[in-house]
Amino acid sequence: MTTTQSAPARPAPDVSRLVVGVLGGTGPQGRGLAVRLAAAGQRVLLGSRDAERASAVAGEVAERAGGAAAPGVEVSVTGGGNADVAGAADLVIVAVPYDGHAELLAGLVEPLAGKVVVDCVVPMGWDEKGAYVLAVPEGSAALQAAALLPDSHVVGAFHHLSARLLEDLSHPEMDGDVMVVGDDRASTDLVQALAGRLPGMRGIYAGRLRNAAAVEALTINLVSVNRRYKAHAGVRITDV
Amino acid sequence: MTTTQSAPARPAPDVSRLVVGVLGGTGPQGRGLAVRLAAAGQRVLLGSRDAERASAVAGEVAERAGGAAAPGVEVSVTGGGNADVAGAADLVIVAVPYDGHAELLAGLVEPLAGKVVVDCVVPMGWDEKGAYVLAVPEGSAALQAAALLPDSHVVGAFHHLSARLLEDLSHPEMDGDVMVVGDDRASTDLVQALAGRLPGMRGIYAGRLRNAAAVEALTINLVSVNRRYKAHAGVRITDV
Repeated sequence: MTTTQSAPARPAPDVSRLVVGVLGGTGPQGRGLAVRLAAAGQRVLLGSRDAERASAVAGEVAERAGGAAAPGVEVSVTGGGNADVAGAADLVIVAVPYDGHAELLAGLVEPLAGKVVVDCVVPMGWDEKGAYVLAVPEGSAALQAAALLPDSHVVGAFHHLSARLLEDLSHPEMDGDVMVVGDDRASTDLVQALAGRLPGMRGIYAGRLRNAAAVEALTINLVSVNRRYKAHAGVRITDV
Repeated sequence: MTTTQSAPARPAPDVSRLVVGVLGGTGPQGRGLAVRLAAAGQRVLLGSRDAERASAVAGEVAERAGGAAAPGVEVSVTGGGNADVAGAADLVIVAVPYDGHAELLAGLVEPLAGKVVVDCVVPMGWDEKGAYVLAVPEGSAALQAAALLPDSHVVGAFHHLSARLLEDLSHPEMDGDVMVVGDDRASTDLVQALAGRLPGMRGIYAGRLRNAAAVEALTINLVSVNRRYKAHAGVRITDV
């Protein structure tokens, strides 16, 4: 293609010591992100409504991540209630189903204050014709999070990663990019760097938070791709 | 990745003799699609509000396509008014700016009846923060086209192709996929096959017409990618 700069002239932040909380960490998407990040050496706190279940799943995730991690990589996954995880983590990924999204975040305003909150929630409904996007009063799940968490830096990311492929550690690398949307440059830079910890993936800045809806809803198009092609589709951005 | 079927067990339709009309063919997106399709041997009718201007641009497009076409490929590009092109073409691509979209299509119900109408229009606005998606009463440009053209088969496609790269014939291949949305299987198959005529590209089925909004609006995220990375970004679907 044409000659382009492949990245802005800004060093990626060091995220190696960042403690990452995953709310809804016992669901497929949260668990998949947790195991991949843990295998890459990220310290992970896995949150759930049910702290005991979170601890049990954290143990399984740690064992699987440990089996896949490179020699010398320290794997650390701890489970807990969502509120405890929100308070203890440096950065929090929200991976709950959309129907519990607003209620969960409304109860975590204080523990999430001042933190980067990464929303990967897709407002998706199903009917006899397949999957479709649900109308969100705020415009998107990410904008809903921003409205509920005025003291946090909300970023949208990690929507397009197949939970099945995330959990399949027999393939060390994944094929795809993480589209990152947000209004605070330091926060989007951080999330891009975190995405880059997933082997084979890049974090690509893809616009402001007001442009999150398309990134979220594209996941629903990927559901259609998966049905038609018997695939676990993701997205690569070309010419970057 | 996991082992998957790369395509459904259905032969691609032969589109080699399909006459393709491009409404708004004198704009950058329409002209870019026209020159690439013509260079691939597709017979193209280039439409504009101004038939004389369409003829002049068609002459330029034919000359450039002829210079890039493989030996033996017959290049044919003819200009005309939008209504004449709509009536004469087998399949019509709508590549006008969003603000003229509804008015144009409302006047072409009869010539477009029974035809496949491919909408690549993006409802995009600009303000001091950059590009954003415009609210469309019908939900998306493609759904608006379907509402206005009840006797046509409306398909959404060709949104994510950089006009600049389409027009840059010094690079014979483009890097990216064409996401195709629509409700009629024969029509989406046809448009996928047409997309496959663009060297380096594939047409990928990406859901029903009600899921067109995300495909349209993702173009606006690509505008942000282009700004940040000085790129002409497109999209590849992985694992397909």
